[in-house]
Amino acid sequence: TKWAINQQRHREKVLNMNTMNPNVKRVEYAVRGPIVQRAVQIEKELKEGVKKPFSEVIKANIGDAHAMGQKPITFFRQVVALCAYPDLLEDNKFPDDAKNRARRILQSCGGGSLGAYSASTGIEVIRQDVARYIEKRDGGIPSNPDNIYLSTGASDAIVTMLKLLTSGEGKTRSGVMISIPQYPLYSAALAELAAVQISYYLDEDKCWGLDVSELRRAVEAAREHCKPRALCIINPGNPTGQVQSRQCIEDVIRFAAEERLFLMADEVYQDNVYAEGCQFHSFKKVLFEMGPEYSNTVELASFHSTSKCYMGECGFRGGYMEVINMDPQVKLQLTKLVSVRLCPPIPGQVLLDLVVNPPRPDEPSYERTANLEILAEKAKLTEQIFNTVSGIRCNPVQGAMYTFPRLTLPEKAIAAAKEKGQAPDMFYCMKLLEETGICLVPGSGFGQRDGTHHFRMTILPATEKLKIVLENIRAFHKRFTEEFS
Amino acid sequence: TKWAINQQRHREKVLNMNTMNPNVKRVEYAVRGPIVQRAVQIEKELKEGVKKPFSEVIKANIGDAHAMGQKPITFFRQVVALCAYPDLLEDNKFPDDAKNRARRILQSCGGGSLGAYSASTGIEVIRQDVARYIEKRDGGIPSNPDNIYLSTGASDAIVTMLKLLTSGEGKTRSGVMISIPQYPLYSAALAELAAVQISYYLDEDKCWGLDVSELRRAVEAAREHCKPRALCIINPGNPTGQVQSRQCIEDVIRFAAEERLFLMADEVYQDNVYAEGCQFHSFKKVLFEMGPEYSNTVELASFHSTSKCYMGECGFRGGYMEVINMDPQVKLQLTKLVSVRLCPPIPGQVLLDLVVNPPRPDEPSYERTANLEILAEKAKLTEQIFNTVSGIRCNPVQGAMYTFPRLTLPEKAIAAAKEKGQAPDMFYCMKLLEETGICLVPGSGFGQRDGTHHFRMTILPATEKLKIVLENIRAFHKRFTEEFS
Repeated sequence: TKWAINQQRHREKVLNMNTMNPNVKRVEYAVRGPIVQRAVQIEKELKEGVKKPFSEVIKANIGDAHAMGQKPITFFRQVVALCAYPDLLEDNKFPDDAKNRARRILQSCGGGSLGAYSASTGIEVIRQDVARYIEKRDGGIPSNPDNIYLSTGASDAIVTMLKLLTSGEGKTRSGVMISIPQYPLYSAALAELAAVQISYYLDEDKCWGLDVSELRRAVEAAREHCKPRALCIINPGNPTGQVQSRQCIEDVIRFAAEERLFLMADEVYQDNVYAEGCQFHSFKKVLFEMGPEYSNTVELASFHSTSKCYMGECGFRGGYMEVINMDPQVKLQLTKLVSVRLCPPIPGQVLLDLVVNPPRPDEPSYERTANLEILAEKAKLTEQIFNTVSGIRCNPVQGAMYTFPRLTLPEKAIAAAKEKGQAPDMFYCMKLLEETGICLVPGSGFGQRDGTHHFRMTILPATEKLKIVLENIRAFHKRFTEEFS
Repeated sequence: TKWAINQQRHREKVLNMNTMNPNVKRVEYAVRGPIVQRAVQIEKELKEGVKKPFSEVIKANIGDAHAMGQKPITFFRQVVALCAYPDLLEDNKFPDDAKNRARRILQSCGGGSLGAYSASTGIEVIRQDVARYIEKRDGGIPSNPDNIYLSTGASDAIVTMLKLLTSGEGKTRSGVMISIPQYPLYSAALAELAAVQISYYLDEDKCWGLDVSELRRAVEAAREHCKPRALCIINPGNPTGQVQSRQCIEDVIRFAAEERLFLMADEVYQDNVYAEGCQFHSFKKVLFEMGPEYSNTVELASFHSTSKCYMGECGFRGGYMEVINMDPQVKLQLTKLVSVRLCPPIPGQVLLDLVVNPPRPDEPSYERTANLEILAEKAKLTEQIFNTVSGIRCNPVQGAMYTFPRLTLPEKAIAAAKEKGQAPDMFYCMKLLEETGICLVPGSGFGQRDGTHHFRMTILPATEKLKIVLENIRAFHKRFTEEFS
């Protein structure tokens, strides 16, 4: 009977692994993958009194500054509080510059409230402030607020751009070039969109440098099976911490022009530059300095965020994208597309405004934060300690917030990992977590040359804690190597 | 030469209308479409001193309570301010219950800061509070915090669920049933995902009622060309304002069980019920009251948001989804998928916590808001005035925040619209905007039966302003009808 057949079929879910979107299955995001889930479990076990050889889990898997104890910038939070609860504008404990800033923002909000939707591209005065910030950063090269799209963190805008760029089927499918190692948002988004990932390798032996000949090799190989359309660059690098030279950026732009690729520049770590002799150059600035042949033609989207740099305000999910030389019709489509989600969260927009427009030295709330200097010290410390360990070798952390050291693992460990069905560096990181409470992300989650093994660790823990973490990893590595020798 | 060819090709953008994702082209979102863009332009013109027959633009196109002058709930904003700037915890101007709430939330944030990422499914104590809220709402039917996913407004979670549900090619492509008229997020998301939209029509003559025979007609016709997988219901209805009876919900659930459809219940207007004799019944509650044959099998996702109801906090982009009977493996995939975007904005999560867990009557900050009663009056007023106009006929606004009246338009107006390449109700709404400054959304943006014409208007303007709006539309309609007769 129909009823009996229905009953039978009912045992199977409507939405199951066979009927689910197959692209979603292929999505991987190691930064919050199985190792982090195990870390959360261990935290619960510790709370429940389970005995462990450590007293806390240290989540060095993610660049989450506040979770690591970094304090927010007072002025930023004062303005957010004033905007959220405008009765405080009458409170004389708040400095005038914070109040003025809050009043200006509230005047641009519907009904003077953070609770109203904004324009889908973001609040207009904030987009103007972002444009002025970019102009100042780039030595006066003009920035048009109409090219600025505020976003829910940088991830949101990156995925939106990749979505626009994806089309075709089979051999005409869009291909997008991403570095290996990469930040796995890129591979995850490409998997979800069923676009083709074109991998180009950074050169670990040259401090994770980018060589145009490798870009050319990758794009030429890819043309056999897809239509390369975009080139993504993360500078300063995540997970690899390199800072690109001006020359290298010029070479990349020339390559993109020759190969007709849309450039996506992930510049969320633009203030996180530590190494002497290194300097951040925005793709936009270099593009404009190369003259009209390039600055009038090469299509570029650049991304920034409130989550990194000296403020580390990840939880607010603020960000923006600037688009250059975008086809005006495509821009209308982009605006339409972002309007479906109404608008980025207003508190994140407010915070972004403060980041791009902080108090000037002559204003009462001007605050000299040492956050970046402290990070520079930690970058150096990390490199130094790791490079004393036999079997760990790391490049200088020139910028961003991570070290991505290479591990030499004993054959027996690799065999043991294989037996468990794990990548060798996953096996290593899992064991490290169980024995020390330190949570890292295996290099396999970012991509790496076959046969090499790495992990990514953030340098954000407070200096004293970072020293302990580094010492614990050193000791673990020694034990691990002995155990499997 | 290669250079000359490149120059030639350079005139064409890499990302242009031909190379762009064709699914994006098909996306439409009328709530922020061309009419709203023109409204923004007119606002600028007014500011620049251009003379118009009106002094302000009234954006009745969107359910944006604060933009319409509704004030935020004091307690909510106090807690957000305390969380953003915890120094205020020392300030004795804040009530103790607000401070306690802020402390409890901050304890659940990484590093005690809103600036840290949360778990990708949301802060755990907030998910627990949501589960308790649902239990209370549904008369004790249990809710498991593990089934709660916090989101960036409801839109985010709705799109994520539709994404999971989309698979197949050609005749096996996923089909998703949505009402006509519908909220255009659904059609936009399905276009973007290249899923098949299966339209079922609400019965305007029966107060936008939903009839299972119409559902059956639609699903049977659809099986010819796709694989129906999901049924979306908006209750209370947007744009149509109906509130579903308990019986109707039971019928829909039985239909979904028989036809093996995943149920998506958009219940963001669950507190917006005005008409006498109408009551909100959650799909979950009815499902569980139907007994284990249904409650153990029918897969359901239900959505809620901080943007509507009595608080109207759209700008914070808070929301949640509860999933019932979801395949455990699919749930892992869902968790993985949301982790790629890291987490919903923390201020929105905080606000959601306050919405699901407001001060009790015995707490100092308990506040009796009349927002819902005022909305009920405005719902009645709108219906009454519109139904006095010859050529406008509207159903009672039983719930939600909109009226969707039907327009009788003169043949000559329809011809004039055709000449302009516009839908007749777009032509009508554009003319209304230019002459009165009132911004509505044409019915064609939501879908309607061929040959019928409507608009959606929110009932949110303050009562005195709403009266003026209604009178202005009445007068405009008379003029319009005369002009084209």
